[in-house]
Order: sequence, then structure tokens, then C-alpha cells
Amino acid sequence: MQYSKLFSKTLKTAPSSAETVNHKLLVQAGFVRQVMAGVYTYTPLGLRVLNKISQIIREEMNNVGGQEVLMPILHPSALWKQTGAWDKSDVLFKIKSRTGREYALAQSNEETVTPLAKEWIHSKNDLPLSIYHINAKFRDELRSKSGILRGREFLMKDMYSWHENQADFEQYYTKVKAAYMRIFGKLGLTAKATEASGGGFSDKISYEFEVLTDAGEAPILYCSKCDYCVNVDDIKTYKEGDSCPKCSGDKLKAAMASEVGNVFDLGTKYSKAFELTIPNSKGEKIYPIMGCYGIGISRTMGVLVEKFHDERGIIWPESAAPFKVHLVAIAGKNEAVTKQADKVYNELTKAGIEVLYDDRESVMAGAKLADADLIGIPYRAVVSEKTGEQIEVKKRNETEAKLMSLENFLQTLKN
Amino acid sequence: MQYSKLFSKTLKTAPSSAETVNHKLLVQAGFVRQVMAGVYTYTPLGLRVLNKISQIIREEMNNVGGQEVLMPILHPSALWKQTGAWDKSDVLFKIKSRTGREYALAQSNEETVTPLAKEWIHSKNDLPLSIYHINAKFRDELRSKSGILRGREFLMKDMYSWHENQADFEQYYTKVKAAYMRIFGKLGLTAKATEASGGGFSDKISYEFEVLTDAGEAPILYCSKCDYCVNVDDIKTYKEGDSCPKCSGDKLKAAMASEVGNVFDLGTKYSKAFELTIPNSKGEKIYPIMGCYGIGISRTMGVLVEKFHDERGIIWPESAAPFKVHLVAIAGKNEAVTKQADKVYNELTKAGIEVLYDDRESVMAGAKLADADLIGIPYRAVVSEKTGEQIEVKKRNETEAKLMSLENFLQTLKN
Repeated sequence: MQYSKLFSKTLKTAPSSAETVNHKLLVQAGFVRQVMAGVYTYTPLGLRVLNKISQIIREEMNNVGGQEVLMPILHPSALWKQTGAWDKSDVLFKIKSRTGREYALAQSNEETVTPLAKEWIHSKNDLPLSIYHINAKFRDELRSKSGILRGREFLMKDMYSWHENQADFEQYYTKVKAAYMRIFGKLGLTAKATEASGGGFSDKISYEFEVLTDAGEAPILYCSKCDYCVNVDDIKTYKEGDSCPKCSGDKLKAAMASEVGNVFDLGTKYSKAFELTIPNSKGEKIYPIMGCYGIGISRTMGVLVEKFHDERGIIWPESAAPFKVHLVAIAGKNEAVTKQADKVYNELTKAGIEVLYDDRESVMAGAKLADADLIGIPYRAVVSEKTGEQIEVKKRNETEAKLMSLENFLQTLKN
Repeated sequence: MQYSKLFSKTLKTAPSSAETVNHKLLVQAGFVRQVMAGVYTYTPLGLRVLNKISQIIREEMNNVGGQEVLMPILHPSALWKQTGAWDKSDVLFKIKSRTGREYALAQSNEETVTPLAKEWIHSKNDLPLSIYHINAKFRDELRSKSGILRGREFLMKDMYSWHENQADFEQYYTKVKAAYMRIFGKLGLTAKATEASGGGFSDKISYEFEVLTDAGEAPILYCSKCDYCVNVDDIKTYKEGDSCPKCSGDKLKAAMASEVGNVFDLGTKYSKAFELTIPNSKGEKIYPIMGCYGIGISRTMGVLVEKFHDERGIIWPESAAPFKVHLVAIAGKNEAVTKQADKVYNELTKAGIEVLYDDRESVMAGAKLADADLIGIPYRAVVSEKTGEQIEVKKRNETEAKLMSLENFLQTLKN
């Protein structure tokens, strides 16, 4: 992609209203624009990041047998009344049609997925079943000031599974937890699985996947020696400085974290609400156990920026970066340099590498290099009078630049 | 994909409430489920079709220089009040937050895209600019009984472009029209470009892309000898049987059609509403000309079913089919047949071909073949005792089956 044609723009300064790093940097570097608090447009750069994260999630969900569907955003109120959430949920957006019909906007999809699954599940032979979708969700938040960490509209993957019994659910949960850890690992994130209560969804214990970040809204207590971690809003048994109740190996530390994923053991709540039953071996009807598994895709994008940045800009992990190479032509009026940069661009593109090519003619070298740092693509490749036939390659997360041939650069990118 | 594991199910009969062919067949064949009138869930089969159509559109929009973004669904009312559409649009869904903030649900995105473009467009050097997105849209329809042809929630591609002057817009429109014709052509559809009024969007002439189908809601008059076509709801100058005003070569025929795409010349309406200006050569401010270009993706899927079906089921064009091959194992208790079918499945999959493999053990041959016809995948491949090492291949739109080796089948699929 030629930068001169890209529908994106860096700003000299971050918007003054932005309170969090992700909001500041994502706007300044041209990945998003705020439409209103908690609602954003994603530019081509931003959409590429969302798609990269979505694809990593999709592959891992398919690996654990999840099947992708697309459920709607507009839900009839009857479904939400059937589970009681219509009156109980504070953050549910409600709409009236011009003829007085009442709808809810998807906050999550238990109310649409359970009646759907009911059509398919008639006996234990139909279990386990696991389906997911990736779609916008909506929450009527009172406050939405954390950039894309807490949206009124946000992109989410939500998966739902049904099981013959608790043991089967727990076995599947273990599989999904491992998939979640692989997803966050591929994104360079270390997520701690906390125990927390199930919120409005369930009385059972649930699990949150928390990434430590000052911009997060979840206060947690964790042990640095083992995997013990709890959300303090829920579970108040211990306090900072207490000895770890799991391994006794360290004192508990307090930190703020962002919940990038969660798992709820929904038990039979929704099976009962929608009378989803199967016969047991005696022919008596039983209610399958249901689980749900969320990952906030836009939030994860925000967390990546909170975790991976420096004073000059974003430092994307390769797996989520909008492009792999940021090619900078410093040509001035030297046509030979432009020609060489064009050649590098064409060769890299031909090799299947995603390149953002800063081909702008009227922009000075310093501004181009500053933009490259701000945007945060993993490899910066400079072609100038000084580099001649070579390319000056610098990784965004390293300080030293190296001169290398195009062939060597291609080799580096393939490794 | 193994059919025994697929989250999809054919029904013996179509739902009695379904009035249109697409509604009947898409539900009966397991591509969609109705959540309420005008709102559907897409199963893995249905989502695959939506994705195929979206990808064809995406490639053609990129070809005409469109850049993909993602704009939100939840819009602040202020934007819609600024253009007057808040009070004028009958079909705009309006929401109030719990603190009394007013929002609109995306019906289209002129109100969000124009302020966005304004940030980028400062001079004629920034023009033309063309950006698009693929996202859900919402319309508060009084009646929504045509399956996925007319949704309260539906998937749409909407592109927007800005131009220095009318001539440049018209040049670009011609390009997009050609791209639209390629898109519909790839899907096997013949779309007629009609002239119609711009509805609420514009006083200028607009263009609709209509596919003739009895389930359509647009009455048109067309000439079979040239490309003359008008929407009768708008333009009432002529009537059925009149001589074609363009070529005089035939009498005008009346038909019903479904509008799968449209183009509006928005003139300076939105540029003026949001004060999007550039300086002309004298330094005076002028308003760029704006165009918008829609394609109903879910509607196009419905139109494909209306056009391509027979009494046994759907006949997908290859470009939109959920899978290329429907492999049917008729094995009974013969393990050699199962082994041979497994081998065919593995070899086809290894060759990168998308296969739906009906591996169900407890389903009779007749029911499997009926399901294959109902689902409508282009190539049916049967492995049975009778076929031995060979495969019985039949195209869904042909009557004759051919016995061939796996090698020959692979060759056929590649051609």
C-alpha cells in the first residue's frame, strides 16, 4: 500500500480529550477516529489490526471444534424477557420500532444462541456442541473514556458450548483455556486467568483473562510465583501483602488489569429458560450444561497498544501489525532513489509481504521516520542516497539499524 | 467439513410461515434461521455464502481504488440532525441511553463518513477519495416478509467517494458501474441498471441495479433489445407495450425485480451539511461532489436462491457456493467404501478444494442425495459399492452423472 494513497493520517499531537495511551496513540497514528465516546471508526490501518486479531482467534476456536456462525444484533425483547435480563441488565440498549415493537441490541448472545442450539440438540449424541461468532456488541455504559478498552460499541468473539454433564464441560473449558492462552501468547500478551463471580450471567464461578495494564479497570491481586490471581471487585478474601494462599511462595501484589477474555460456567440457567432438554439413560429429561467464552477483539487491540509502545509511538507485535514492513523512500529529487525504492516495494510485495510504502514526495525524512515510529510496524526499511543498492533495516523494538541487500532482507523476513 | 459434525440441519418441509422461495429454501436447506421477521442467524453454511459474496465485492471495490474501513453501527443523533434525516427518515431506528442520550442505528453511513472524510480532504490533491465498509445496516420496516431480500437487519457494502467536480464523479461512477457489472456477472446474475430518483438521499438521478425476479419488490419496465430499464415507482413516463424510447427496437416489458445495488449522485448535499470544502484555483471555497454506492450482500444471497433453484433445492453458482464438492458416502456397513470415501475426502481437501463430506452412518442413500440437491453445492461426488475405485460425479445443474477416477475428478475441478 502506498502511503500517499492511504486513507489514514498521523497527527502532530494526540487529541486533548484522550485520557489513555491507546486512545492517544491510536488516534495520533491514524488507526481510529472517535465518533463519540465509546464508539470508533477503524481506518484501513485499524481494520487490518482487527482482522489480524480476529483471524488468530478464529483459527484457535476452529481448533477446539468451534463452528462459526453469524447471529444478529437486533433481538426481539421476548427472548430477553424469557431469561429475565430485559429488566435486570443496566447496560442493555432497548429500542422501540415505530409500531411499538421492542428490541434489544446484542450485549451478548445467550438469548439468541440457546433457541438456535435447541433445534439441533435432541440427545447426548448431539453433544458436545460449540458455536461462535464475531460481531459487534453494545453496552449502555455510563462512562466510556478508556479509548477502545471500554466501548459502547465493540467487536467481540463469543463462543457457546453445550455438554451432557459438568465433567464434560470442565474438560472442554480446559481445552478452551489452553486455546485462549495460545491466542494471547501469539499476540505477545501474558494473560492471567482469575477466578471471579459470574456477574449477571451465572451464580457459578467464572474465569477472567486479565492483562496487567495501568489503563485497565479491573483491580486484581496476584502472586508472582504461581498462577494465583483474583479480581478484587469480586473476591475480597485477601489483601495486598498477604501471603499467597495457593503457593505461600510470595506476598500478593495489587495491580490494575484489563479483562481481554472470560469464560462463564452458565450451568443449566439458559437450558432451563428455553427448555433445552435431552433424555438421560432412563429417558428422563435433563438440561445440558452450557458454557460461554468471550474475547474482546477491539479491547485486545487497545491492550496491545497499552502494553507495547514507547515515547515515540506504538510497537505492534508482528502477529497483529497492519503491515510487516514500513518502507521509507528518502529520495528528494533523486530519481534513482525513487526507482530503487519502487523496486524494493515491488519485490517485497511480489514475495507476499505486506508493505506500507511511504512514497510521499513533499515530506521530509525526519517526519517520515517519526511517522514510522508512531505507526509502529515491525520492520522499518529505508532507501536513500546513502543506502545505494542496499536497504537500511531497523526493527521497531530495536535501536540498531543494519544495512543489507534486498535478498538478505527477504531472507530475514522469511525467518 | 464432515456433515455429521456440521452445525446445520435440513428440514423435511419449509416453514409454513415462509412466503418466498429464498426464505423457504434457505431455512429448509439449513443456511439461515429466522430470529424474527427480517432478522436472521446465518449458520456455518450461510456464513460461508455471505463471505464468498463479500470477498468478490471487496476485490472489485479495491480494484476501483476503494479503501476498506469499519464504521460503527451506533451513531450520535447530532450527526443525523445535522443533515435533517433524524426527522425525515421513516425507517431510522432511534435509541435512548439510560441517561437520555439519543442515538441512531446505521441505516447507511453518509452521516458518519462525511465528517471522517472532512479530516482528510483539504485540497483537490486529496481527491478523488473512495472508502467503503461492509457492516450490518438497520431499517425499521413495517413489513419484512421476503426472507433475506428485505431485512430489518441486513449486511451491506457501502462505498462513498468525493470528487473535485461533476465530470470526475461521472467518470468514477462509470468505473464503479463496470465493477458492479463484473460482481453480478461473477455471481451469474444479469443486473439491469435502471434510472430512478434518489429517494431521500438526493434530488439527482440515481441508478439502481435490478435483477428480475418474481420475489422482487421493484416494478420495472425494460427493453429486451437494449439496456433501457426504469423503475415504475419513480418514473412513470412510459407503460408496458410502449415502444422502447431508447432504441425503438422492441416494446417495453413489465417485470418485478430486486434491487441488489444502487448508486446515488449525492451532489454537494453532505459536503454542505458538514461544511466539507476545498479551495478552487481562485482560493474560493467549493464543495466536493459526493457519490455513494451500495450492494445488499444478504439480499444478493437471497436473489441467488430466487434465481437459481429447482423443485429439489438450491443451485448455487460456484462463486458463491458454501463448498465446491458435496461428497456422499453410501457405505452401509461396507468398511471398504467408507475407507475409499475418506480417502477421496482427504485427497480433495489436500488439493485445497472445499468439500462437504456427508459421512453420516445412519442416514439412507436417498435422504443423503435429497439433502445434496437441497443444499445445492455445484459438484456432487458419490462413493458407493457400485462405484468401487471410481467416483460418480454429477453437477447440480446437470442431469447426467459420470464415473471417473479421483485423478480425473481433480482435473475437472481445476479446469
